[in-house]
Amino acid sequence: MMRPRFITLEGVDGAGKSTHLGFIRDTLSALGVDACFTREPGGTALGEHLRALLLAVETQVSLETETLLMFAARSQHLDEVIRPALAAGRWVVSDRFTDATFAYQGGGRGVADARIAALEDWVQQGLQPDLTLLFDVPTEIAAQRMSATRELDRFEREQGDFHRRVRAAYLVRAKDNPRFYVLDSTRSIADIQADIARRLALLAEQA
Amino acid sequence: MMRPRFITLEGVDGAGKSTHLGFIRDTLSALGVDACFTREPGGTALGEHLRALLLAVETQVSLETETLLMFAARSQHLDEVIRPALAAGRWVVSDRFTDATFAYQGGGRGVADARIAALEDWVQQGLQPDLTLLFDVPTEIAAQRMSATRELDRFEREQGDFHRRVRAAYLVRAKDNPRFYVLDSTRSIADIQADIARRLALLAEQA
Repeated sequence: MMRPRFITLEGVDGAGKSTHLGFIRDTLSALGVDACFTREPGGTALGEHLRALLLAVETQVSLETETLLMFAARSQHLDEVIRPALAAGRWVVSDRFTDATFAYQGGGRGVADARIAALEDWVQQGLQPDLTLLFDVPTEIAAQRMSATRELDRFEREQGDFHRRVRAAYLVRAKDNPRFYVLDSTRSIADIQADIARRLALLAEQA
Repeated sequence: MMRPRFITLEGVDGAGKSTHLGFIRDTLSALGVDACFTREPGGTALGEHLRALLLAVETQVSLETETLLMFAARSQHLDEVIRPALAAGRWVVSDRFTDATFAYQGGGRGVADARIAALEDWVQQGLQPDLTLLFDVPTEIAAQRMSATRELDRFEREQGDFHRRVRAAYLVRAKDNPRFYVLDSTRSIADIQADIARRLALLAEQA
């Protein structure tokens, strides 16, 4: 029997993660892998509650509190979905995980890496993804994909700087962690999928 | 001007904390202290939301997640209420704070002290109460006060064991931290209040 594997998908909005989800599902299925697909934020009833709470405009939440709530949702996601699936021998594919917190709350909004890492240790207790597919694309192209033909206004340009910091934080993490596999997401869908298929086949062989 | 002071009230349910809140308010006022009264869980809109979420029976939450949510509420409480009040020179009196997490989630439910301490450091970054009034009472008396005349059923006796562990955890913390002032809450209200008044007057003198 194959060892269960934990795969995460990461990247800025507009990098094309969702485009490839169906393909990843089909590829794993063809490799004979029983996989559980999940996502963050969300993935549990509590996660959805907290997501709604964070999005409600009347909720006053400091950046520190937001980071703790992210990890509370992640803790429940691990206890309720990820660890039980792995324990049952299933693979897990999560659309976003802790690298997103390092990229968005860390790189994007300025929470120190060491503080995020302390919560990562507390919640994951050593559990890490076996493979992280990072869909990388220059911020301008991601923005174009998101808001097709409009010229960016001042607010969206600020958002652009935010997304540049998020992308940079992802790339720094990818350089430091061999579990990352960076996909140049400016290429054709066919090229990217060929790449994904090779990487997943390799993981299944080693499992 | 007096230095602002941070006072917390702790103790098991039925130990008599609430009985003395009005007296503490009057005593501080007579000492010329401008104090902000607050409580946990709660104290902020987010805290109230999280409290409702934790109490809703349909919410599935692991003990680890519950502990993180407690500290998320505490983080917001610090950022929105406690730190701004202290910065403005006001005293803060909080009905429960982090010692309650050590007592209830730690002593009562078994989360390791070191894990709670890690979140305490993360959230408080060194901020600690100047004085903690611990209202201590044997579990049996607290239970009698809570559910006056009925004989305890099996479930309530289990609850009794839980509250015994909570009380023990409070007393261990009190032994280790000089900021604690333990009040024998089996005495008459007049005796307890004379004690509280002396301790608050001393704190105001030193402030």
